[in-house]
Amino acid sequence: MGEVVFIGLGLYDEEDITLKGLREARSCDLLFAEFYTSALMGTNIDKLEKNIGKKIKILKREEVEKGDVLFEEAKSRKVGFLVPGDPMQATTHIELRLRAIDLGIKTRIIHGTSIITAASGLLGLQAYKFGRIITIPFKEKGYHPISPYQNLLSNRKAGLHTLILLDVKEEGRYMTANEGIEYLLDLEKREGGKVFTENTILCALARVGSSGPLIKAGKAGNLVKEDFGKPLHCLVVPGKLHFMEKEALIKIAKAPQSIE
Amino acid sequence: MGEVVFIGLGLYDEEDITLKGLREARSCDLLFAEFYTSALMGTNIDKLEKNIGKKIKILKREEVEKGDVLFEEAKSRKVGFLVPGDPMQATTHIELRLRAIDLGIKTRIIHGTSIITAASGLLGLQAYKFGRIITIPFKEKGYHPISPYQNLLSNRKAGLHTLILLDVKEEGRYMTANEGIEYLLDLEKREGGKVFTENTILCALARVGSSGPLIKAGKAGNLVKEDFGKPLHCLVVPGKLHFMEKEALIKIAKAPQSIE
Repeated sequence: MGEVVFIGLGLYDEEDITLKGLREARSCDLLFAEFYTSALMGTNIDKLEKNIGKKIKILKREEVEKGDVLFEEAKSRKVGFLVPGDPMQATTHIELRLRAIDLGIKTRIIHGTSIITAASGLLGLQAYKFGRIITIPFKEKGYHPISPYQNLLSNRKAGLHTLILLDVKEEGRYMTANEGIEYLLDLEKREGGKVFTENTILCALARVGSSGPLIKAGKAGNLVKEDFGKPLHCLVVPGKLHFMEKEALIKIAKAPQSIE
Repeated sequence: MGEVVFIGLGLYDEEDITLKGLREARSCDLLFAEFYTSALMGTNIDKLEKNIGKKIKILKREEVEKGDVLFEEAKSRKVGFLVPGDPMQATTHIELRLRAIDLGIKTRIIHGTSIITAASGLLGLQAYKFGRIITIPFKEKGYHPISPYQNLLSNRKAGLHTLILLDVKEEGRYMTANEGIEYLLDLEKREGGKVFTENTILCALARVGSSGPLIKAGKAGNLVKEDFGKPLHCLVVPGKLHFMEKEALIKIAKAPQSIE
């Protein structure tokens, strides 16, 4: 009987896999990977293959969603499925796992580092004061969902911090922090709810997991004009700040002294 | 000029550190660790030292809070501070980092795997549908805070899932899933808010990060009587379930077919 091991590659480059993940990957008969739910910007497939010592077949979104390539092999062999971050943070991974279970294929998860805890940690914001995570999608003709704005409002009302993840497209298009801020400012103009104005203090993070992640706090109206460099980017909108969190944002993220 | 590198050890044993964390730890002049904010139940200090190839000095809570032992060394040397999970999820890490910055000591973070994403991933519950994280403290004479119950209520009202972390004491006392459930049932009796009754469906997880984590969904009134084995334990109270999440809880966590 075969097996699919979902292995988290972590945040940024080929060194962000755990020792356990590396050992498991090396023991697999066959390795697949996907880089459309997120991406490892500090490495490439050659480096990943060299690090593990095995060939890796990258699956496209369509192939992951169909699943048949992976399941066919996993019926009788140990198959590793490498994914950025921690596995199962994307719905498509959960779906794949459930279908494997239906086919009688054993599944296991080897955890990886994730932006969900890394972002709060880098900023010095307390993990248990975060509300619901928001994802901002690329605007497409007529598609400009208001739900990110509404969820941000709920978190703010409750005094909670909000991690905002930014859309990633399979063809290698990564939403910038600037585009994310613009998206919310546009909704603010339309809704007028004073949820996210040019004066809202927020934090932009870039290249989390690298040796030099960029971390910057400031007003939305200022940050939207800055250049945060290469992807991936994400945003954090602070809620009610404890004095130590305020200190952290000032000292670590160069927030203005006046934040509250 | 010295440096403190906060290195996440990840979830369970000595293999849960990333390759980057291992390389950084090996390059440090001196290694400290703390195991009172959480613990690595699948290993011990000898195995950790052997894996890294260096001696590690374990700091007690008091020593971490004072910080002087660590700062004295970090003034001129590269000091690694090893912590369970992903660094900075505990307030005490953030405080330490801010004081190091005040002393002109450089700080960096090497991320680790964390229960915060691992729990949702193992259960197949969608990460972006989690509300605020709750921690349940050990009850002590007259100390039985209601805030965990109130925060659970807020999440439930919003239809969100809730990760419940359980208290860890420095002397090696780890709250069981049973104690956590009892804590909430006691508050339910006192408050009568129908937030967490014997019929509430929830999930208990044990030994996350190990090769055989225990994952079990069921009614609070039943789970409270079960034995989940060795620590660490945690709980997840699902909010409004998407049909795929329902399927995941039934297939992965053996939830009753009737859950909604």
